[in-house]
Amino acid sequence: MDKFMQAAIAEAKLGLSEGGIPIGSVIVHKGKIIGRGHNRRIQSGSPTLHGEMDALENAGRQSAATYRESVLYTTLSPCSMCSGAILLYGIPKVIVGENSTFLGEEELLAARGVEVEVVHNQQCIELMQNFISSSPELWNEDIGE
Amino acid sequence: MDKFMQAAIAEAKLGLSEGGIPIGSVIVHKGKIIGRGHNRRIQSGSPTLHGEMDALENAGRQSAATYRESVLYTTLSPCSMCSGAILLYGIPKVIVGENSTFLGEEELLAARGVEVEVVHNQQCIELMQNFISSSPELWNEDIGE
Repeated sequence: MDKFMQAAIAEAKLGLSEGGIPIGSVIVHKGKIIGRGHNRRIQSGSPTLHGEMDALENAGRQSAATYRESVLYTTLSPCSMCSGAILLYGIPKVIVGENSTFLGEEELLAARGVEVEVVHNQQCIELMQNFISSSPELWNEDIGE
Repeated sequence: MDKFMQAAIAEAKLGLSEGGIPIGSVIVHKGKIIGRGHNRRIQSGSPTLHGEMDALENAGRQSAATYRESVLYTTLSPCSMCSGAILLYGIPKVIVGENSTFLGEEELLAARGVEVEVVHNQQCIELMQNFISSSPELWNEDIGE
């Protein structure tokens, strides 16, 4: 498996080990991870730090040029907030672990010119299936339902 | 002026007084402010805490039902990230201070059924005009340009 998707899955598992929602993300610039993160709803009481947002936050302030040469890896299809952040910063490519447990705004991203690749990773699917079945109320809260 | 837009402007001014980008936001549920915030790019080195995101973050974890009865006030037209957050949580109404210095994703919000009202507030316009003319590089960074 791609080492960057492996790193995103490691973040998801780290989140799970903290009692959190198992979604992870890394941002890669020119072959190097510049930000990594995972969903922090439970751990930090945060409604905004989805995995992708946490990776962006941990990358810190970057130039527009850097974002436009970056690839975002996420274990789960990005929701409207995270997709909006991808559009804000003009990140041109997103690699998605899976979109079978949740389908985010892939269509909007593609319509705005973002390359979206879904790798249908079995580990990503199982992490979410297990979490959703054990904590449906937390999952619904995370996606505003 | 609407007291909630006044509160959003007070947040924008607070951000400016901290050396930050003067954009503020409040979230109102049943006539009560449940979250307030302002852009924290400079103060916290944050690429994700726009005013609206900071207000959402400070509101903390809320139920879907609460978001769906809330109104978000923001001094500036919401960018794609903040608009995505509004869509994620199903906030049905957004009051925008101004959209003449920056036009965000109002069209997308409206297409998804969000009521968007722009009040063309002169204080909001002046705060942004002054900031953009004095610190264009910070402003461009904030909108990924």
